[in-house]
Amino acid sequence: MTPPRSSVDRPEPASAGSGPFGVGGAGVGPVRTQHVVVATAADPLELDCGRRLGHVEVGYETYGRLDPDGGNAVYLCHALTGDAHAAGIDGVTGAVGWWDALIGPGRAIDTDRWFVVCGTLLGSCLGTTGPTTADPATGRPYGLDFPPLTIADQARVHRRLCRALGIDRLHAVIGPSVGGMHALQWFLDAPEEIGRTVLIASSGRLTVENRAFSAAGRQAILDDPGFDGGRYLERGGPGPVVGLAAARRFAHITYVSGGSLQRKLGDAPPSPWPPREAADWLAPGRAIERYLEHQGRSFLDRFDALSYLYLTRPMDDFDPFGEQAAAAARSAVQRNPAARHRVISFDSDWRFGADHSRALVDGLRAAGALDVSHQELAAPWGHDAFLLEVDGFPELIAESLR
Amino acid sequence: MTPPRSSVDRPEPASAGSGPFGVGGAGVGPVRTQHVVVATAADPLELDCGRRLGHVEVGYETYGRLDPDGGNAVYLCHALTGDAHAAGIDGVTGAVGWWDALIGPGRAIDTDRWFVVCGTLLGSCLGTTGPTTADPATGRPYGLDFPPLTIADQARVHRRLCRALGIDRLHAVIGPSVGGMHALQWFLDAPEEIGRTVLIASSGRLTVENRAFSAAGRQAILDDPGFDGGRYLERGGPGPVVGLAAARRFAHITYVSGGSLQRKLGDAPPSPWPPREAADWLAPGRAIERYLEHQGRSFLDRFDALSYLYLTRPMDDFDPFGEQAAAAARSAVQRNPAARHRVISFDSDWRFGADHSRALVDGLRAAGALDVSHQELAAPWGHDAFLLEVDGFPELIAESLR
Repeated sequence: MTPPRSSVDRPEPASAGSGPFGVGGAGVGPVRTQHVVVATAADPLELDCGRRLGHVEVGYETYGRLDPDGGNAVYLCHALTGDAHAAGIDGVTGAVGWWDALIGPGRAIDTDRWFVVCGTLLGSCLGTTGPTTADPATGRPYGLDFPPLTIADQARVHRRLCRALGIDRLHAVIGPSVGGMHALQWFLDAPEEIGRTVLIASSGRLTVENRAFSAAGRQAILDDPGFDGGRYLERGGPGPVVGLAAARRFAHITYVSGGSLQRKLGDAPPSPWPPREAADWLAPGRAIERYLEHQGRSFLDRFDALSYLYLTRPMDDFDPFGEQAAAAARSAVQRNPAARHRVISFDSDWRFGADHSRALVDGLRAAGALDVSHQELAAPWGHDAFLLEVDGFPELIAESLR
Repeated sequence: MTPPRSSVDRPEPASAGSGPFGVGGAGVGPVRTQHVVVATAADPLELDCGRRLGHVEVGYETYGRLDPDGGNAVYLCHALTGDAHAAGIDGVTGAVGWWDALIGPGRAIDTDRWFVVCGTLLGSCLGTTGPTTADPATGRPYGLDFPPLTIADQARVHRRLCRALGIDRLHAVIGPSVGGMHALQWFLDAPEEIGRTVLIASSGRLTVENRAFSAAGRQAILDDPGFDGGRYLERGGPGPVVGLAAARRFAHITYVSGGSLQRKLGDAPPSPWPPREAADWLAPGRAIERYLEHQGRSFLDRFDALSYLYLTRPMDDFDPFGEQAAAAARSAVQRNPAARHRVISFDSDWRFGADHSRALVDGLRAAGALDVSHQELAAPWGHDAFLLEVDGFPELIAESLR
């Protein structure tokens, strides 16, 4: 059941290699994900739920060189099912990093200038400690014995990774989608560590509709008999493959725009239609149906249901500018009011679109941040636009770092 | 596995009984669904797939009295998981009809004036022949041996029901959602039979995004081991309960507006949060989660997975004004160009919203229809608004019949 390491969601690969979109320059070449232990029994990770983890290992990659004064570090917070492999070509699997087109010498995130760090999220199945890794107390996969997580818990692990690498301040923290939540939370927890944030297609608080989609996906997994109380890994069952594939297919629909589906997959039914047999009639024969079928099945090969639960749930609870948290946000921002915050949305994103970005801007400004701006880019791809070729996006990222 | 008969989808009951919304008047009182055989071995139903059904029984209800000249018949085409029980109180179950607030003496569809007929769709599990009924050839439930269906096949059964009741022309055919597809198809198949259509929150062609949601739901059912090749009814298994509940939950999200979810179900997480145990953390504890959980589970009690497949698939293929069908639509409309077509949409409907209604208007006009109008109503409920209390809606329905 351990899924192979893999690159992030990418409905259409961004152009990689020698001709990245918008900004030129060479790639970072062959890379290999490293691992580092960031919490131990002597220095455990305290979690918001009141429990602690006495062993946390993080998968990470770095590109470029850290300046002697440590002033050129840029941290990337990846999206939901992404991982540390943000750039370059994995030396073993050959997988291209999920933002390879944007990262490298001369690229938008110029590794001749910046030292780029990306670590896999706490709770993921892609190289960092999570519910699929072995519980040191039992030697078996944690399953549901892994503690509940918050966005702040996950951001704390990003910070520990930086400390382990000798980085105590960040020129910038960049996060697309849920990664933007981690970037923002990190800033609010340690504002003096961060010079600027770049929050891309992200949100400061899910809508109830966002949470509904997420909840229906989790429920499909939890209801699947293959979930087996979260013990499928150690018991060797198939896992909740029906529920996870269903969750992924529906989630995927929310990651793309209706317009891009229409353009790419708006084919007519096979002819003659309808066929005589119901099995043929109901089979996923149209382009959109084959596409979704593939989205579900391929996700099973690279991601795990427990991690899907553990990574989606914290997003529901994120509300840094809500009534409960507003005072803390104000006092945090006052510790570094001049930090720069660039918020970017895509006009076809109906998951975390402009409303979400505007709420982030409003929340930061209300908390006292002085340098907050919002750019909306035209892109036909919906939420996934941050992974794809969008006019002006590389330039905007490059400019956000300058 | 046979689900109990029940009323249609109703996230919030419309007010029923003595105080219906907008238009006053009394209800139709106690009713009972009747059944009639509309196809026999001697007079089989020929289907678009090339097969035929030698026995079709239809569940139906009528309200009011047919005028001696037969000129006051109004047919209601119900929505996806609705049924013939449109009005009154079922004498046995006590269930209130799905449009009770609109139907009765003095109500919007005034049964002192109109003879109202509503029949359950071919392929449904709620009283009309479908994949869950016994195949006369074997005595066992059809399952996937039931033939593929089209919107036109289903409309043909509505027509046969009318013939069986001695009705050969309709003052109006009214259809919300997929019911509007049946109403329109019926008009195109037999334009001289129909004086006017009222197409509510309906569509002349699904978007690829519409089809994506539908396909992901069907796939969840087909992938569920409980589906058992469609033989779960005769084999007595639990059926694809995980897949069907998941399909329903996601579909339900598309039936309601984000705004109404936000207003009704935008609660904070339980406190303290997060809890210490992942099982508590992941359980559906928030209002939106309990709501979706209920939507899925209650659907299992009243609907069947095979019927869900058989009723959703025909919508994918409906395209009466598409390239293949445009000439036929033109020649049909020429046989009754003066028929009146009223198209109604709701401003918060993101499933079959104004774009769909405008495309219906354009299609009808391009085919030569002379009396086509479109009204958009303000309603916060999303697609399900046609089942709920909407200012001006009863008056618009009443006016559509005058």
